[in-house]
Amino acid sequence: MQRISFVLILTLLAGIFALHVGRTQASAPSPAGPQFTSDGKLVRPEGYRRWVYLSSGYGMSYSPKPDSMQMFTNVFVNPTSYDYFVVHGTWPDKTIFILEEYGSTSHGSINKNGSYQNEFMGFEAEVKDEARFPDKWAYFGFEGAEKSASAGAPSKNVCWNCHEQNAAVEHSFVQFYPELLKIAKEKGTIKPTVHLEK
Amino acid sequence: MQRISFVLILTLLAGIFALHVGRTQASAPSPAGPQFTSDGKLVRPEGYRRWVYLSSGYGMSYSPKPDSMQMFTNVFVNPTSYDYFVVHGTWPDKTIFILEEYGSTSHGSINKNGSYQNEFMGFEAEVKDEARFPDKWAYFGFEGAEKSASAGAPSKNVCWNCHEQNAAVEHSFVQFYPELLKIAKEKGTIKPTVHLEK
Repeated sequence: MQRISFVLILTLLAGIFALHVGRTQASAPSPAGPQFTSDGKLVRPEGYRRWVYLSSGYGMSYSPKPDSMQMFTNVFVNPTSYDYFVVHGTWPDKTIFILEEYGSTSHGSINKNGSYQNEFMGFEAEVKDEARFPDKWAYFGFEGAEKSASAGAPSKNVCWNCHEQNAAVEHSFVQFYPELLKIAKEKGTIKPTVHLEK
Repeated sequence: MQRISFVLILTLLAGIFALHVGRTQASAPSPAGPQFTSDGKLVRPEGYRRWVYLSSGYGMSYSPKPDSMQMFTNVFVNPTSYDYFVVHGTWPDKTIFILEEYGSTSHGSINKNGSYQNEFMGFEAEVKDEARFPDKWAYFGFEGAEKSASAGAPSKNVCWNCHEQNAAVEHSFVQFYPELLKIAKEKGTIKPTVHLEK
């Protein structure tokens, strides 16, 4: 009888725990890490709008000629990697950045000056996966509602080279994210070869 | 003996549960709701950068004359209220919005055009608390590192009146947050008197 009570209670304990853990995971905003299709495409990270926001730019361009369209770019990172960065000032394996693009407009509703975001254009993802990518970081472009995307090029493409050379911390442009820049300065993790100013 | 086993196991169950719930809460990005000092000031919501990002504007102004300084404004809302909005298209009691202000710069690092965020200027909070505020919504401005802030005025101030008249859903300018605008349109919760376009 005592044995049966034990077994019953342990079963109950396991059951309640499974339920509780299940509920916690269902409401968690981040996945376990980047997910890939069997042919190596990155699966669209659906929940990234619940991840940690880093900063936005407006009409930013790295080439002397401005883009014809003034777009907003919003940057997010998965929460567990953000927490790791706050402590270490570097990015753990399986980090995913999202660079979201929105069209802009000025005069709508009661707005009279400046710009706000309107149409969603797509996003780019930057993934750190040391076992999967020989160059550690890879770049993926999602247009519209695409469910998966191939890496930009098999190795060291234009994105990779620019981030390798110019990004302040590893492959992340922390110089454009003021809250992360403070942390990186404090932890001393900015690449010594990078120019933060003009 | 059997009674003791029961009591022991129940105590263990309660203990493990308390630990698990404690850990979940410690890592949760949102507080229970707005916190106030004994003299009615809003306590600075320290963790809002982990809340849900809604959108950003650049140089936005509701008056015909542009501001002398082109600032970025980033808007966040507490996660439980966001989840409620996704389902209902309206805001629950205890909702907190944050409108963060950042200075901007153009030519830094490898950037050649457009603007990115640099210096943190402060933020404003908009709080829905039906028991505390006779007008349901109240407005608070935090400059620099202030730990608490008084409501803008005891009742129906300039912020309150403008949001009452022009905000698309209750007191929130959902017309400037494209992802929420889709939801509000779908749920039919946009105020019929509000003009979304110019």
